[in-house]
Amino acid sequence: MADKKTGGLAGIVAGTTEICTVGSEGNSLHYRGFSVEDLAEHSCFEEVAHLLIHGHLPTVVELAQYKAKLSSMRSLPNPLKIILQQIPAIAHPMDVLRTGCSALGTIEPEESFKQQKDIADRLLASFPSMLLYWYHYHKQGKEINLQTEEDSIAGHFLHLLHGHSADVMLQRALDVSLILYAEHEFNASTFAARVTTATLADFYSAVTSAIGTLRGSLHGGANEEAMKLLERFDSVDAADKGIRQMLANKELIMGFGHRVYRVRDPRSDVIKEWSKKLAAHTGNTLLFPVSEQVDNIMAEEKGLFPNADFYSASAYRFCDIPTEMFTPIFVMSRITGWSAHIFEQRANNKLIRPGAEYIGPEPQTFVALEQR
Amino acid sequence: MADKKTGGLAGIVAGTTEICTVGSEGNSLHYRGFSVEDLAEHSCFEEVAHLLIHGHLPTVVELAQYKAKLSSMRSLPNPLKIILQQIPAIAHPMDVLRTGCSALGTIEPEESFKQQKDIADRLLASFPSMLLYWYHYHKQGKEINLQTEEDSIAGHFLHLLHGHSADVMLQRALDVSLILYAEHEFNASTFAARVTTATLADFYSAVTSAIGTLRGSLHGGANEEAMKLLERFDSVDAADKGIRQMLANKELIMGFGHRVYRVRDPRSDVIKEWSKKLAAHTGNTLLFPVSEQVDNIMAEEKGLFPNADFYSASAYRFCDIPTEMFTPIFVMSRITGWSAHIFEQRANNKLIRPGAEYIGPEPQTFVALEQR
Repeated sequence: MADKKTGGLAGIVAGTTEICTVGSEGNSLHYRGFSVEDLAEHSCFEEVAHLLIHGHLPTVVELAQYKAKLSSMRSLPNPLKIILQQIPAIAHPMDVLRTGCSALGTIEPEESFKQQKDIADRLLASFPSMLLYWYHYHKQGKEINLQTEEDSIAGHFLHLLHGHSADVMLQRALDVSLILYAEHEFNASTFAARVTTATLADFYSAVTSAIGTLRGSLHGGANEEAMKLLERFDSVDAADKGIRQMLANKELIMGFGHRVYRVRDPRSDVIKEWSKKLAAHTGNTLLFPVSEQVDNIMAEEKGLFPNADFYSASAYRFCDIPTEMFTPIFVMSRITGWSAHIFEQRANNKLIRPGAEYIGPEPQTFVALEQR
Repeated sequence: MADKKTGGLAGIVAGTTEICTVGSEGNSLHYRGFSVEDLAEHSCFEEVAHLLIHGHLPTVVELAQYKAKLSSMRSLPNPLKIILQQIPAIAHPMDVLRTGCSALGTIEPEESFKQQKDIADRLLASFPSMLLYWYHYHKQGKEINLQTEEDSIAGHFLHLLHGHSADVMLQRALDVSLILYAEHEFNASTFAARVTTATLADFYSAVTSAIGTLRGSLHGGANEEAMKLLERFDSVDAADKGIRQMLANKELIMGFGHRVYRVRDPRSDVIKEWSKKLAAHTGNTLLFPVSEQVDNIMAEEKGLFPNADFYSASAYRFCDIPTEMFTPIFVMSRITGWSAHIFEQRANNKLIRPGAEYIGPEPQTFVALEQR
């Protein structure tokens, strides 16, 4: 009974926040009062990171300083490089980031909560380095240079990934996607970060919890699952038949619907536009129409709308990003929102410790080992 | 308002469990229906681990097989050893275990949930190895042998720590303490493990979240804080004066009271007896009387009772365990309870995603960068 009422804590208010409204009218998303559509249209990801981590949208001078600060924080300490070398080539990249974040916390520990904003910036700046150092070390057997001239995180990531500066449109598409994924209230990974933070654990512990939580296919892993699905179809017709068959088999189709949004996911409209633009730009005539067909069937048959993950999959593919890096990109973005929530939890802390309804055995008489 | 009602989710039922009742009459603790007093009196930690991970108290044959299985899982893969070498000597041991657990998840990944019980046993068997390999590598510059003839986790841990087999009474004291710490319903670290599990993340991610959460001083770190406090006093009189002064200054005294227990913490009575016995056995005439004095003042002045952490501190000291290993020992025990909760969450899963009350700025008009 209690389980029905509070299963998964749906509808339970677990605390207050000044950071984000999500789905307040069933379809809106604001970061500190700014709509995600405005931010995606008019700002860059570093402005949004500054808004979330440092509390306000930066001025021209502040933004330049912030980009310079982040650029200066991209290198990795040698012990961390050796650790990344030890992580197998076949590891899931999310496990690489989870381990990299945890390891950095042993090498550059948080000695005082006063360091928290610098640590947030350090992680924001160094996650692309961790992932791509490990990736190239194993794929090419080479230690890449972690410095580039790119002043944006999106540009820097694509440069490290491909070994050269990316097309401006691809850079901006990834930049927008980072804005869309930056923050989302008490989602599971953020809530995990707050549960960890609430014991007064260090910053890295909280972010490590968040990464591990984002890893699951019901959360961050959804865009990877969407991509794997889309890749199965070599035509719009094949997608049509395949999806209808999956629905008939009651299989789960990832990238649709949302625990909080009831009408639409505002992020989907933005990233869908970008996916369409990138399809034209890159000359790919298959993936976007296939995606749209899946979208149409889901609306028609299930009344479901795409969430942020669905069109992100094709957008990332057009940027030539390997599927297994989709969720790590989510980490590179969401570290901004996680950080804001860690600060907020610490500023007004209370241990997060719910109760449980016991449905197990009654008190049992102990029977000694020899008599069992 | 919502914050007051649900601050820290106190009193909110976040789900059902068959594993543990805690504080059902304000003072009791049962694992799968067996009272913790019975278990601490009559069973060994491996029996309790079997009860929690494998669902029932083992027979004589099952226990022998289980101990043999755990003994066979104590070694560490070479890449993990190299990773542990890279973690600085000054790191917090909890950060070592957090990173070691995460790294093992990249080297021996969970490819199917069918592996979950073996992974639970693997972590149970290898946490002492991770901690003490790292510890001796940095303290003595030597790579210790991770195999011992000890067939209990408590004995194995003390052997690895001190380089020789420990006194039987010390082994049993640690063994009992592992029983007492094994499981505690939806405490913060277990709840964090369940939040992570509920996205369908892998086993290592869930345990990594739990370790990071246990690290905080409001949770697992409390026994370390209690020890640091007790060590300040070189006499019962000094403790008396010091604690009264701290109370007058409204300083927090760790190791007393509990979110769930209202009358007493049943674990405290058990470990207090052991602490007293070890004091006599080791000839230490200071630490136990100092602890009792602090206990008496807290009862008298604040009406608070000691929780499991308070007398664990002195018991561990009598076993010659360094203070910074107190919380890691908690990990070595609680991995059993965490595992049971991860299995349970997976068996009847629902994403754990509460809501938040928004108290931030109203929707704001976006101002372009150049106009700020």
